[in-house]
Parts: sequence; structure tokens; C-alpha cells
Amino acid sequence: MRNVDYSLYLITDRTYLKGRSLFDAVEEAIRAGVTVVQLREKNISDREFYEAGLKLREITKSYDVPLIINDRVDIAIAVDADGVHLGQEELPAKVVREIIGYKKIIGVSAANFEEAKKACEDGADYVGVGAVFKTPSKKDAKYVSLETLREITEKIPIPVLAIGGIDKENIDEVLKYDIKGVCCISAILKGDIGENVRLLKDKITKKLKQIY
Amino acid sequence: MRNVDYSLYLITDRTYLKGRSLFDAVEEAIRAGVTVVQLREKNISDREFYEAGLKLREITKSYDVPLIINDRVDIAIAVDADGVHLGQEELPAKVVREIIGYKKIIGVSAANFEEAKKACEDGADYVGVGAVFKTPSKKDAKYVSLETLREITEKIPIPVLAIGGIDKENIDEVLKYDIKGVCCISAILKGDIGENVRLLKDKITKKLKQIY
Ligand code: NI
Repeated sequence: MRNVDYSLYLITDRTYLKGRSLFDAVEEAIRAGVTVVQLREKNISDREFYEAGLKLREITKSYDVPLIINDRVDIAIAVDADGVHLGQEELPAKVVREIIGYKKIIGVSAANFEEAKKACEDGADYVGVGAVFKTPSKKDAKYVSLETLREITEKIPIPVLAIGGIDKENIDEVLKYDIKGVCCISAILKGDIGENVRLLKDKITKKLKQIY
Repeated sequence: MRNVDYSLYLITDRTYLKGRSLFDAVEEAIRAGVTVVQLREKNISDREFYEAGLKLREITKSYDVPLIINDRVDIAIAVDADGVHLGQEELPAKVVREIIGYKKIIGVSAANFEEAKKACEDGADYVGVGAVFKTPSKKDAKYVSLETLREITEKIPIPVLAIGGIDKENIDEVLKYDIKGVCCISAILKGDIGENVRLLKDKITKKLKQIY
């Protein structure tokens, strides 16, 4: 698998678009510096999810940015995405690896050390650890202490991404640890996307530049 | 693909189980004469859907009855089901065929002649045409006249199954046409499953025996 720059990982959420096009929003975010895009859809049909995936596949490909599909392995295959992101309630990573093979990225959400360890053992390419801060995007979010985030970065050999309520005010708190990136939703999509991304990117580049 | 006996096709629905185990209910239905089982799940996590699929895979395999998964191509692959059933709002059959290959069954729901024709062109193995009668299982059901059902059986070369509100009282009305089977939910799962299946099966066998 090619080396992935996970440093600023956008997860889509139509609730923040306020009438803007999802595709324009993602393109603006990529132009400003987002390095990975995860398409996450709720409350639309599979057909619409698939069609949105096809369009984002085109856009992300033209910028050479990896596209990850949330949850739906079949849709990830159907749109030829770069990978799939699995929560703890989704198909097991081990089973998904058998379906999609070794050329695709598998990401797994982890809310504690055991889940992160299991994801790694099951062959995940990265773990998204969170929620590290209070998040408006997930009402049922489980929270992870920064101490646990640190422990995971120290003991788990695959890339660790921090997720959950990360914004330009608190991002420095997670950039202290050996993470390979941060996942953002509202911190990117709410308001001026280009400016949001540039502010986040600036902080990430300063802190993570030793890694990339 | 092996020749499939679609004559009495059970679609699962936990709302009719009233505390009974889904697995016991399906096994009882198979013992009494159900020839295909479609696992349809709503409001459970993907992980639970997958685990239910694994268990039903074992049961159906032991009786040599095909297992179809509703909607989720990834779960169908993960549990090694015999096929997948797609609604009009799901992934297109053509795309699914590329993912699952030619050894798996693809069924498509059709609510009019055009949808049935398209399903056939897209390489579906069968079409489920309905709802032919008023159904309690789907609030947003589209209805199909018996005249359209007849037209589809006459002009579409793949097996046509009738679906929607079919029970022992009205089954003879659809068995007049050249269908290859009937899909039932509540008519099988409500009340005494064994007796329900035997009554339906008896009528089907009398009318469809010339076909099988
Ligand atoms: Ni669906």
C-alpha cells in the first residue's frame, strides 16, 4: 500500500453544509490542504450513497487524495474507493480484509486501548482514536482520555489518528502525541472551509513536520 | 448457477417473532417446506446483522436451502450467502454483479414493468414483483396490479416471484400466473410457522407442480 498522508483527515457530514454542495465543500477542503476524505452518509438511500461516492471518487482522484468510505464495504468496492472505515459495531476488520484484499485501506475506530490493539491485530491500516474532546457530531460518542491516546500511540505500531471535537483551539493538545493525523468534521465544514483548513493545517504542519 | 427452487421464499422480519428465536423460526419454516430464506434486518448494527447471517448460513446450509441477504452486498460476501436482494434504492444490480461475480444470485424488487425489464437487462437472476396485495410489512410499499404481474411473467425471461401481502387466502390469485414462487413474511412468521408453511406449500405444489 502506498504511504498515506493522514495528517488532516476530513469526515463529511451534510448537516454542516447549510445548502452548499457536498462536492464543492470537499473540493474546497482539498484545495486548502485536507489529505484524506472519508465519505460518511446517514439517512440517504444506498443508491444515493453510491452516487455521491462516485462523484467524490472523481474529485479526490483528480487531487490524488485518498477516499475512504464509512462503514459500507460494498459501496467502497463499487466506487473503487481507497478504503473503508469501520466502527466497533460494523463488520470485523479481519472479515473485511478478506473481502477487499491488501490494496485497500482499512481504518477502525477505537475508544480504548483494547480496541486499538484488536484493530491492529485484525490488520487495520490505522486506528481513529476518540472521541478525545466533546463532539457535536456524535451524540452517543464514547470518550477517550489524552492519557489513553498517548498510551495507544506508544504501544500500537499502526498510524494513530485523533478524532472527536478537535478544532483550531484544542488541536495543539493532541499534536503533542505521536499521532499521524487528526480527523475533523465541523472544524472544517462549519463556516469558511478554506480558512478552517488553512488554520488547522498550519498547526499540524508545525507540529508534525518532523514526521512527514 | 444451480437451479433454484424459489417456490416458497421466506423473508425474515423480527417484528413477527414475539420473543421466539429468529433461528428457530427459520429452521421450523425450512423443515415445513420453505425453499429460500432471505435475511432482512432493520435497526440492528452491521455487526449483529453479520452475526445473524453467519448463524443462518449454517442452518440453511444444513438443509441445502439458499440464503439471500437483503440489500447488503458486503454482508452477503462476508457470510458466504448464496446471493443478495436489492431494492430500487440500493446499489444497481449491474454494479453488484461486478462485485459478487456470476456464482451468486442477485434478486431485484420491481414495482412495474420497466423496473422488471431493467433488472433483467442488468443481469438479475430473479425479480420480486410487488406489492401485489396490501402489506403490513412495508408502509411505503408501491403496489402492482395483477395485470402488470401477468405482463411481467409473459415478457421477462428470468424467474418472477410475487411479493406483498400474500397469504393462504389470496395466494391462488397469483398462482394463476407464470410465477416461479411467492415471497412471504407475516403469512409464514405470524402464529404457527409449521402450519402456515404447510398450508401455503400445499397450494403452491398443486398449482406450480407442472413447473418443477
Ligand atoms: Ni439499503
